[in-house]
Amino acid sequence: MSTFQVVQKPEGKFKIKFLPNNVEIDVFKDGENLLKIAMAAGVHINASCGGIGSCGKCKVKIKGDNYIGGKSPKLEKEEIEEGFRLACLTKVKGPIEVDIPKESQIDSSVFQLDKDFLLSSSKIKHLLPSFSLNPTVFKIYLELDKPNKDDNINDLDRLIRAIKKKHKFEKITATFDVVLKLPYIIRESDWKVNVTLVALEENYKIIDVDPGTINIRNYALAVDIGTTSVSAQLIDLNKCFLNYTGIDEVDISGHESVVGEHSLYNAQVSYGEDVITRIVFSLKGDGLKTLQQAIVKTLNEIIENIINKSNISKDEISFMVVAANTTMTQLFLGVSPKYIREAPYVPTAKTFPLVHAHLLGLNLPNHIYTYTFPTVSSYVGGDIVSGVLATGIYQQREITLFMDIGTNGEIVLGNQDWLVCTSCSAGPAFEGGGIKNGMRASLGAIDHVKINPTNFEPMIMAIGDDSKPIGICGSGLIEIISEMLITGIINQNGKFNRDLNTPRVREGDEGGYEYVLVWAKDSGIGTDIVINEADIDNLMRAKGAIFAGCKTLLDSVGMTFKDLQRVIIAGGFGKFINLERAVEIGLFPEIDFNKFIYVGNSSLLGSRLVSFSKDLMRTAENISNMMTNIELADNVNFMSEFIAATFLPHTDINLFPNTIKKISSIKK
Amino acid sequence: MSTFQVVQKPEGKFKIKFLPNNVEIDVFKDGENLLKIAMAAGVHINASCGGIGSCGKCKVKIKGDNYIGGKSPKLEKEEIEEGFRLACLTKVKGPIEVDIPKESQIDSSVFQLDKDFLLSSSKIKHLLPSFSLNPTVFKIYLELDKPNKDDNINDLDRLIRAIKKKHKFEKITATFDVVLKLPYIIRESDWKVNVTLVALEENYKIIDVDPGTINIRNYALAVDIGTTSVSAQLIDLNKCFLNYTGIDEVDISGHESVVGEHSLYNAQVSYGEDVITRIVFSLKGDGLKTLQQAIVKTLNEIIENIINKSNISKDEISFMVVAANTTMTQLFLGVSPKYIREAPYVPTAKTFPLVHAHLLGLNLPNHIYTYTFPTVSSYVGGDIVSGVLATGIYQQREITLFMDIGTNGEIVLGNQDWLVCTSCSAGPAFEGGGIKNGMRASLGAIDHVKINPTNFEPMIMAIGDDSKPIGICGSGLIEIISEMLITGIINQNGKFNRDLNTPRVREGDEGGYEYVLVWAKDSGIGTDIVINEADIDNLMRAKGAIFAGCKTLLDSVGMTFKDLQRVIIAGGFGKFINLERAVEIGLFPEIDFNKFIYVGNSSLLGSRLVSFSKDLMRTAENISNMMTNIELADNVNFMSEFIAATFLPHTDINLFPNTIKKISSIKK
Repeated sequence: MSTFQVVQKPEGKFKIKFLPNNVEIDVFKDGENLLKIAMAAGVHINASCGGIGSCGKCKVKIKGDNYIGGKSPKLEKEEIEEGFRLACLTKVKGPIEVDIPKESQIDSSVFQLDKDFLLSSSKIKHLLPSFSLNPTVFKIYLELDKPNKDDNINDLDRLIRAIKKKHKFEKITATFDVVLKLPYIIRESDWKVNVTLVALEENYKIIDVDPGTINIRNYALAVDIGTTSVSAQLIDLNKCFLNYTGIDEVDISGHESVVGEHSLYNAQVSYGEDVITRIVFSLKGDGLKTLQQAIVKTLNEIIENIINKSNISKDEISFMVVAANTTMTQLFLGVSPKYIREAPYVPTAKTFPLVHAHLLGLNLPNHIYTYTFPTVSSYVGGDIVSGVLATGIYQQREITLFMDIGTNGEIVLGNQDWLVCTSCSAGPAFEGGGIKNGMRASLGAIDHVKINPTNFEPMIMAIGDDSKPIGICGSGLIEIISEMLITGIINQNGKFNRDLNTPRVREGDEGGYEYVLVWAKDSGIGTDIVINEADIDNLMRAKGAIFAGCKTLLDSVGMTFKDLQRVIIAGGFGKFINLERAVEIGLFPEIDFNKFIYVGNSSLLGSRLVSFSKDLMRTAENISNMMTNIELADNVNFMSEFIAATFLPHTDINLFPNTIKKISSIKK
Repeated sequence: MSTFQVVQKPEGKFKIKFLPNNVEIDVFKDGENLLKIAMAAGVHINASCGGIGSCGKCKVKIKGDNYIGGKSPKLEKEEIEEGFRLACLTKVKGPIEVDIPKESQIDSSVFQLDKDFLLSSSKIKHLLPSFSLNPTVFKIYLELDKPNKDDNINDLDRLIRAIKKKHKFEKITATFDVVLKLPYIIRESDWKVNVTLVALEENYKIIDVDPGTINIRNYALAVDIGTTSVSAQLIDLNKCFLNYTGIDEVDISGHESVVGEHSLYNAQVSYGEDVITRIVFSLKGDGLKTLQQAIVKTLNEIIENIINKSNISKDEISFMVVAANTTMTQLFLGVSPKYIREAPYVPTAKTFPLVHAHLLGLNLPNHIYTYTFPTVSSYVGGDIVSGVLATGIYQQREITLFMDIGTNGEIVLGNQDWLVCTSCSAGPAFEGGGIKNGMRASLGAIDHVKINPTNFEPMIMAIGDDSKPIGICGSGLIEIISEMLITGIINQNGKFNRDLNTPRVREGDEGGYEYVLVWAKDSGIGTDIVINEADIDNLMRAKGAIFAGCKTLLDSVGMTFKDLQRVIIAGGFGKFINLERAVEIGLFPEIDFNKFIYVGNSSLLGSRLVSFSKDLMRTAENISNMMTNIELADNVNFMSEFIAATFLPHTDINLFPNTIKKISSIKK
């Protein structure tokens, strides 16, 4: 008999199968919530509201009778008859099969489309003229003197002496883990070692020691944790360290140094679409733990994917840089975001300590530290600080407006001398939320639209060549509304012209008029794809909030849109927006188009740059301190600007003279 | 059915009972080693050799037949017949009862005797004239401004701002654990908090935050880990911090601040008596882990004892300072001492990083850091640095010789300008090892002896009033040998005068003569207690090594004993030594007795002082760097000095003129 007994994993009471991917899971408890079971099985079902039945997104088709609940006014009568239920309202009593329809699935294929969207070196050089290349975590190869009778100092001091002999580092310490393995490693490797050091503010700390190799490989992970999607890049730090001699010789964008990248939806999406829903979820039971584990799971999957595609081992990674908004930062670290949501909107910290990645649950070696970008306020986070850093606004004389548009619009205004910032809640419209046929920018989403001004017939393009359209994404919405405005289908209030001679404009089921973009026979969902007055209203409020935010920020420093010398559009959504159309609906200001720069995911770019340079880590801190946050929550000026901007393009025609001219000319 | 199954702890195959304390343990494996079972049961059996049957100390009496092995030439025939076996050689096959005889038990009662041996404040003031009182870890009470619309900085910066407002700390950071609990604590305690900070070299780090109390309690643990015994004191840090205004107002010895103390034998003793045996044990299987857990177990017991006697909770402790020799330091931290024993005798580090106590296995709250004193070399450790610090040698003009005598004798020589040090292996004789009736200084040990020079009858005293003598401890040995020398029972070679008219001097069983100190009828072990020529030889070599070490150290700087202005005797053993007798056998030099100072456990004293003052932490580092280690292992001068000193008192009569006079006068 052995001292230990093997405990077998008990079998569940029954099994649940999820289609279309045939995922099976054992269930142990009667009456378990179906959405929870899906999450446990790693099956994603869209759910925007955090599981309270209010969004109606988690529609699934159930085969079998072993469940109760799941019905909701969000489902059509026919759907209920066919077996459709809301997963979040369904309690499972026995084995069933659950079919997840296309519109409830999360589709990651969109990320493949983004892959090539990266700023060129020359463009970044223009944005960010100077910084020193000097990675926070770096490795050096050393051959130690072997100890003898006359030189028998201890192992650690021998190592430190050798480092000091080669480099001008004044103070060097070591982690306890290094001390534990040091005596074995140096002797097994015949006194030739690779040493990994992190440059802290006051000293250098040895965080790892390995048998020496002449070609030292040293990688970092640059990460952007978005509310919706998470992106990471594996960076070859030697690509800059080897070229340390001068800025002109290196690829300053770090573009060449990217040896792998991957993106996934943030698994937290299953618990709510926006930060507020997530914060609310985090306050219930072990919600905080659930959300922390969800983002860690996403990151582990991303890292696994990148590593599997590369010839690099995890041991060769030595640092991880994360940029995220304040709520995502706190959820990633397991710090409750409770007080972010309660007035006076206080985050727990601006600068979080370096944390060992493995302590957060990441499947990474023990020596790897995670650096999170400092935040500014509860709603202007590390992703924006990272974006400001990457785009060099803080170094330039030009007055720049920086906009990162998503469910929250974060806006920064300023130059090398001053920076003000704010955040305005745009709602989920830009990501297809709250829009009848809205969807994220994934396969089958309509993203380009032209409408023939004579017969009002549309020409549409959807993402993916072979897909029938299944919905409209944010950038598509902007184009549709701008086209409808310019062709006179809708007026500047966003209401339909009911006198047009076309079957496409009709009264909808829910009252109000709608425009049919795709007839049922041509759509991938079996019903017409339409846009209605409520949808237009939602988008007008979204773009109105962003525009009013910009205007309020300018007002706060006594400036107008004419003073802007540059407008930087950042973010995953921003890069798909058609500039002209965005101006026409009044999302962007009507100024010289040449002043606009699209930078894509500047948050990820900033992460990458910081992994290259400890000085930039300090710069991030300085930027965060330099940014003055303007709270819009009870700002009277913002409220009146918002009302003025909830119009197409704006109630103040002087702000959009060319657009007004266009509208007038078509109407004639 | 629940998701989890309760797994019952399986019953053992059979039980072993240990007497006299009736401890029972379940055994799962046939043929398990009896010493290992005893260790697992928490039952101590003396074992000096690390379990290889060579020391013969682990003698036990077994009732029952379910075992094999255990016989040894170390046991008398009669003993084997009575059921005595060596535990380390016995393999258990079924239930047995194991009786541990007195001489195999570890007895902690001796520590109670030490309790009152502490240096007075005035004495320490004399030794150590100045240091600033400024604890490394301290607590402050703060009332934070509540956040509002116009002051909504994050929680951490709010806390740091409040600290800076009250104190002139420039750079303040926080641990991740603090960040995690901060938002809850400050709000639950209505923005009144106690903050625990550690003063590091470059900054202050917040390591804990608790609800505020007006009377802040703040304690430290000062620990001395000896090869044989472990002592700890619980220190009230406020006792000095409250009196921060000036050195004259406070109790500089920290004597008053000791609110609890306890000592135990180092549980590692079961795996070998000296550092070399321990190092050898650490290299076998998971020996390192076993030894690390053994010392942690001892410390946990000591801490539990101190806490139980006090009204202080573990949460009120905020720092732990440990002084230990190099091997004990590394074993405590779990760092392999392998290379300490292999030429060129290299420790892993001189200064180990601060380590979280709970990570070492100590039952202490997560925020407590453990500081270990820096070492000098493989055989001059942190306990000696601590002793040099506590006795202020490094601050004084006077040339001082510092001796810490145990199984190793560590010697330091110098003053404020220079310090040289060495370590010489004295062997276990001073702790009763290798002596036929030798034992540690515990209950029943003979520690004082006078011999009547006319009839050679002894007058003895043993430790503990009611105990019959059961052996001779180190200080007793010194007295016996000095008495025998002075009364002419032995000559200067340590050989017996065979012509004396007394039954007490006789030929022993094992060849050579012996002196009977206690007849069987008066002894607690049922046999005569004797001292034989082999014992005397062992002690001569032990004292010879120490004296030769001192001489070699003096030679190395061109000095003689006459140049010494002070001799400090430190260590648990040292304080029991009769000065006059120690000079007579040639252990101590024959110089003015007034130059000798006994300081007791100066290692523990240094620990206590460092817990009071971060400046002293830096001082310890400086002392360690200041100390030049002289290696005696293949030092030719030492070898010839050793031979000259293996004589009573010494071959050079000029070094001991008074002793020679005494010997001559008695002989006449």
